[in-house]
Amino acid sequence: HCVGRWSLFLVGTFVHSTDHTAVEILEDRLLGVDTEGKPCHKRTSSHHFFMPGMVDTHIHASQYSYAGTALDLPLLQWLNTYTFPVEACYKDLGFARNVYTHVVKRTLRNGTTTACYFATIHTDASLLLGQIANDFGQRALVGKVCMDTNNFVPHYRETPEESHDETNRFISELLEKKYPLVRPVVTPRFAPSCSAALLGHLGEIAQNNHLHIQSHISETKEEVKLVKELFPDYDSYTDVYHKHNLLTDKTVMAHGCHLTDEELKLFREKGASIAHCPNSNISLCSGMLDARRVLNHKVKLGLGTDVAGGYSPSMLDAVRRTLDTSKVLTIQDPQYQTLTFEEVFRLATLGGSQALSLDEHTGNFKVGKDFDALRVNTAIEGGPIDLINHGEGPKVGTSLPLHRARIIN
Amino acid sequence: HCVGRWSLFLVGTFVHSTDHTAVEILEDRLLGVDTEGKPCHKRTSSHHFFMPGMVDTHIHASQYSYAGTALDLPLLQWLNTYTFPVEACYKDLGFARNVYTHVVKRTLRNGTTTACYFATIHTDASLLLGQIANDFGQRALVGKVCMDTNNFVPHYRETPEESHDETNRFISELLEKKYPLVRPVVTPRFAPSCSAALLGHLGEIAQNNHLHIQSHISETKEEVKLVKELFPDYDSYTDVYHKHNLLTDKTVMAHGCHLTDEELKLFREKGASIAHCPNSNISLCSGMLDARRVLNHKVKLGLGTDVAGGYSPSMLDAVRRTLDTSKVLTIQDPQYQTLTFEEVFRLATLGGSQALSLDEHTGNFKVGKDFDALRVNTAIEGGPIDLINHGEGPKVGTSLPLHRARIIN
Ligand SMILES: [Zn+2]
Ligand SMILES: [Zn+2]
Repeated sequence: HCVGRWSLFLVGTFVHSTDHTAVEILEDRLLGVDTEGKPCHKRTSSHHFFMPGMVDTHIHASQYSYAGTALDLPLLQWLNTYTFPVEACYKDLGFARNVYTHVVKRTLRNGTTTACYFATIHTDASLLLGQIANDFGQRALVGKVCMDTNNFVPHYRETPEESHDETNRFISELLEKKYPLVRPVVTPRFAPSCSAALLGHLGEIAQNNHLHIQSHISETKEEVKLVKELFPDYDSYTDVYHKHNLLTDKTVMAHGCHLTDEELKLFREKGASIAHCPNSNISLCSGMLDARRVLNHKVKLGLGTDVAGGYSPSMLDAVRRTLDTSKVLTIQDPQYQTLTFEEVFRLATLGGSQALSLDEHTGNFKVGKDFDALRVNTAIEGGPIDLINHGEGPKVGTSLPLHRARIIN
Repeated sequence: HCVGRWSLFLVGTFVHSTDHTAVEILEDRLLGVDTEGKPCHKRTSSHHFFMPGMVDTHIHASQYSYAGTALDLPLLQWLNTYTFPVEACYKDLGFARNVYTHVVKRTLRNGTTTACYFATIHTDASLLLGQIANDFGQRALVGKVCMDTNNFVPHYRETPEESHDETNRFISELLEKKYPLVRPVVTPRFAPSCSAALLGHLGEIAQNNHLHIQSHISETKEEVKLVKELFPDYDSYTDVYHKHNLLTDKTVMAHGCHLTDEELKLFREKGASIAHCPNSNISLCSGMLDARRVLNHKVKLGLGTDVAGGYSPSMLDAVRRTLDTSKVLTIQDPQYQTLTFEEVFRLATLGGSQALSLDEHTGNFKVGKDFDALRVNTAIEGGPIDLINHGEGPKVGTSLPLHRARIIN
């Protein structure tokens, strides 16, 4: 009945995840895509397959400028020594444009079709990041960072009023652009950088506008201890966000390595999610998230690169490091239920879209979603894969974003 | 005094390791290289530098055909289920030629200028691997695998006599070729696959011909237990090799995750070395080598990819996984003395050459050694690095083997 609207047919192998199947392989399928392009009919070769674009649920676009360096300090010292001085540079829009263009192009090239970005405290540079993501066709949540506490680099902080006003300006100006794929996300850096007053303001803004929220939680033990000292009247680190209306079903919190069962229960109850960033957690010696425990608690879980605490802007790296962390936990306890490759594939795609409350639009090839897809050519000349005839299936290697359209049946 | 023999001058930045300095950066140096090529004078750009070719101290060329798959079982089951059936295929020389060509080309492309290879039990296919390494200009130790015990895949084993005779044939035929860069290495698979009689034969062959020796040791706890059962009259796993003259200053043993202090002392005393294979150890949930402890025992240490227990044929991956393992040990014990990037760079280059007793010829830019070098271009079009002006130095990315010649002063 909607033949007239079909303009692209893709025939080939589609690999994706569903709630019930970690990896579903649809061989020799005909997929109709509703797009504005010219009608055509493409059959992929046996060395091609399609998979959903990957979802990076936690990445600091502003930290890409020093990715791969400066990983010799634990989190709190790392922030003061490397991160804050660099982030302060983004009041220079030329510098911001240069780095943000690189990070959007690089993550797209790595197969990240959706990213949840931390920018910096600078409203105009954060708006620019939204524009660049839109221009390159990347689905994105973009957050202007909020922080009114910073004793070590005092030129990189706001007053609570500035933070409140600039967050409002950021949100309204970004929404006015009507970018089809880019939305604002309310972004308190993390509790140690925010006064209770600021957290309250931000919770209110998010609640009144039904906005996405992102922050960090329980990345290191030292940080958990610090939050206990700074917020002695709260039940837990999670409770600090919860009491300020920052723990909702549109909240994604990075890390969560050291959350208690009670805190995970609160996450579940509120529908909040966790961004697992294993490269960062290992590189900064922060801790190891027990992802199986999070899944058992039925808390939504996605993967993040956490550039530059994580040195790699690739979600394939996040997939590999997630498996590594799960295997290290298995070395420590041979009874541990190791994550499978298939489960981690799901976390990088469908899981991420759920963690960002964007699963209505992306995450797998369910009819009605947008077609955020990668076409993977395992036999590309000069590529990273040597195909050896051995009775095995193809292996995943380089990937390229194809295009965006709507999946129809 | 030897101007007449200099035919290539390289001007630029040289990065390498010495015994006293983990990473020494020689900026704007003139390096004379004694080669048979035409005289010329090259100045590298500011985005180029030279580093020593990397040394893979442990890689199974024969397992490359399934690299990146089949990592869902622990070592002993993994060998029986995946490895032995695949290795049995190498009696087919066509199959061997295909895979061995791929693995030599791939590792060279990844910057491995020296590799210590396990082949299979098949003499002719193992000789072919030596020929292919020579043809592509890769420095290599090549081992025909010896094993007379295999209850699970009985068509993939030899009698002790066959193993002895074929090892002798392999060594003499390979030496007859007079390949300038390729040498044989005596290769008992590991104690659980070898009778004491076979180990004795192989120790004698190595001793009589002053040959290199390679094997596996203490990769998993289950394997250590098995060796205790199979060889009840020996002091330790290490003692099994030692008593058969297989622990010498030309021996490299893969893994060693679960060695005792006494065993490490025996390694030191005999001058034997360890190939640290962190990707494999994590991927097969085998254990985590405490590399700092090995270094403190002054045991020679190199890095290995251990394809296909390790899924990556890249020594840069081995570098990253070595840091990861050291950082995970730091998460477990914050007092742990984490390996630095610089130390791991040394392990991948100079350390590897020492572990293989090839440091007379390769491993760094010391005058008199061969010039096994990579020229790294950090600014290559379409490469993995985005250079962002930020006051930092260049980062290491893609690398290409340059050529082989002799370094002169
Ligand atoms: Zn972060
Ligand atoms: Zn091995």
